Amino acid sequence: MSGWGLLDAPPAGARWEFEPGEYRRRLLGARRRMAEAAIDCLFLTSEKNIRYLTGFHTQIWVSPTRPRYVLVPIDGEPVAIVPVTNVPGFRTTSWLGEIRAWPAPRPADDGVSLVLDGLRAMVPPGGRVGAEIGPEMRVEMPIADFLRVRDGLPGVALVDAGPVLRPLRMVKSPAEVERVRRIGQIASEAFARLPALLASGQSERDVYQGLYRLLVELGADKVPYLVPVSGPDGYEQINMGPTDRVLGEGDLLFVDVGAVWRGYFCDFDRNFAIRRTTAELREAHARVFDATEAGLEAARPGRTTADVWRAMAAVLDPGGQAETPVGRMGHGLGLDLTEPPSIAPGDHTVLDAGMVLTIEPSLVLPGHGGMARRLMVHEENVVVTATGCELLTRRAARELPVV
Amino acid sequence: MSGWGLLDAPPAGARWEFEPGEYRRRLLGARRRMAEAAIDCLFLTSEKNIRYLTGFHTQIWVSPTRPRYVLVPIDGEPVAIVPVTNVPGFRTTSWLGEIRAWPAPRPADDGVSLVLDGLRAMVPPGGRVGAEIGPEMRVEMPIADFLRVRDGLPGVALVDAGPVLRPLRMVKSPAEVERVRRIGQIASEAFARLPALLASGQSERDVYQGLYRLLVELGADKVPYLVPVSGPDGYEQINMGPTDRVLGEGDLLFVDVGAVWRGYFCDFDRNFAIRRTTAELREAHARVFDATEAGLEAARPGRTTADVWRAMAAVLDPGGQAETPVGRMGHGLGLDLTEPPSIAPGDHTVLDAGMVLTIEPSLVLPGHGGMARRLMVHEENVVVTATGCELLTRRAARELPVV
Repeated sequence: MSGWGLLDAPPAGARWEFEPGEYRRRLLGARRRMAEAAIDCLFLTSEKNIRYLTGFHTQIWVSPTRPRYVLVPIDGEPVAIVPVTNVPGFRTTSWLGEIRAWPAPRPADDGVSLVLDGLRAMVPPGGRVGAEIGPEMRVEMPIADFLRVRDGLPGVALVDAGPVLRPLRMVKSPAEVERVRRIGQIASEAFARLPALLASGQSERDVYQGLYRLLVELGADKVPYLVPVSGPDGYEQINMGPTDRVLGEGDLLFVDVGAVWRGYFCDFDRNFAIRRTTAELREAHARVFDATEAGLEAARPGRTTADVWRAMAAVLDPGGQAETPVGRMGHGLGLDLTEPPSIAPGDHTVLDAGMVLTIEPSLVLPGHGGMARRLMVHEENVVVTATGCELLTRRAARELPVV
Repeated sequence: MSGWGLLDAPPAGARWEFEPGEYRRRLLGARRRMAEAAIDCLFLTSEKNIRYLTGFHTQIWVSPTRPRYVLVPIDGEPVAIVPVTNVPGFRTTSWLGEIRAWPAPRPADDGVSLVLDGLRAMVPPGGRVGAEIGPEMRVEMPIADFLRVRDGLPGVALVDAGPVLRPLRMVKSPAEVERVRRIGQIASEAFARLPALLASGQSERDVYQGLYRLLVELGADKVPYLVPVSGPDGYEQINMGPTDRVLGEGDLLFVDVGAVWRGYFCDFDRNFAIRRTTAELREAHARVFDATEAGLEAARPGRTTADVWRAMAAVLDPGGQAETPVGRMGHGLGLDLTEPPSIAPGDHTVLDAGMVLTIEPSLVLPGHGGMARRLMVHEENVVVTATGCELLTRRAARELPVV
């Protein structure tokens, strides 16, 4: 099989994020699944899939002006098609040997004709191109141009690359796991120091800023998701904030952190009671802690995500049907804050060693203080091992901390 | 005209980012342009366009798992179609009164049937729906679902919403300009303090971390783009970094900052020579400074972006054709790091008061120290006023700072 780019002879001065062997395994895994799915070529446009397969990474993805493309044929050299401004970056961070460029932005033809030339050379008549069109994926190019590519390939089918990319990215290598562990430990240490930051009269924004600084100080590269939420004896949602609300005695403060180290996310949360709390909240916190324990026990190779959900649900609501106010009780994570699979009753993904997951049970409490209902959410990050699972975060205490 | 949601009677406790009048003007501007473009309804999926028109904002957009939709008919109530977990957030941060929800993630129907129901009720047979399909836009939902929406509306055309959204977002309100100014001043202060942070033996990563902490301390909400680049007497690209490269005497350090305050970006850069520099670099820095002055002088209502480009090119290369190694010499900015228009010879956008732009001239210098070529890039942020333009950043010094 040809098409290994520079993997066999990395150029001097290359600053690749991982060893060549890591990229070889990823490419081999992609090609094996491409064969199974009868896909002749992958057509990639998204930051995370391109980073995963080629190593290329740059913060300029935050700008929507210029698209970038990578074509990965099942055999033969992969090709990057990128703005001229990204050529030096591709040469230093990716193992691809074949890089084609155009002077972007050029709205009349922002790489489309180069993509068409590339795909026409790689895909036989009647062939199939795997594109990022399915669930939990985004095509990171203008859709008018995507349709131009599709319509420029008569007789070729654009199909969902999910069956190739989803299982491939779901199982992490040891080197990937170490990155999630690193950021999980950084955020765990930040949470440990958070009580010392809390002072009288602080608002959710103050908590945000203080914890943000701490995360950067401790080595986080990026903090794309940092959500403090608070309310009197509880909170009713977990993804809005911070606001200017000042924390007061009896408040429950919830903080969720999705920080990044070398491209990989942690995603977990902690609860803090301000100065005093109630028996109801202590009990609820202990319950989600115990549900997490059940989830940690259930998460092992051969079990399914639905099994893990059921183990937690049995603790949360021994009598009947547990409500999952956040839609599921955990998910995959890695290059993205949230990745497949979902820990949900309808998801039957079989767990395998190397999968990195959040274990995230939640309870609904009766409304109070203007809130229609209150939540209690708990979350840890784990990697599935050969015999069970291993925490990547420092385990929270069972007892709700009063700070 | 109906369809103003809660704008006439904001609910108690609403935490909108802007005054109701701001959203009224945006909606009115959208509808005026929809009428001109014969668009019956906008179909929005992206974080920035939804935030712009409705006020809804949350950090959870970083997760690709759940899509969110907003339909804006030319007359009648706009409708949000969102995961149940986003309903509290929509109720507090947006003025929309009509919010429909589904329990996401639900891959078999992640809001698609609700979107189809909504569009069928709003768009007449033969009608036109404006979607985010054109240049510099992204559809933030799975494309397979986007095509299901399109194919579920026989007789209805999905057209580019760019002619509505582009001119609307391009001209900022005074309240938007103040946000860019605020983050521009925060980053200017951080740059002013950067020399005090630089110590012997520091790497690009150390510069990154120190400046990141400073930006957060000074009040930046997010730092999505922070790129330090360095090299012996120059740099050959401006969007890759940081690396572990240790700064040494004679190096040129370039730092570009795209930080955010309350949703709005600054985007500008600074150059620093480490301990000593050369006549060539001093001269190049003064030249890009002078080109910036020419750009600031040229940026005024009635002129075009191509005029501003030509004014800078004449200073950079009085003899002939200026090379623009980064593809253009500036661009719009606001909710995005880079927005239309481009300051480029082929872009003929007529400038108008309220447009916020980067002025970003660049020079190519001969190769040196292993680099095929070197760049000198300079950048400031401005708002076009009634009579000219006004800086939103603290003007750099003409003389290359040696630190």
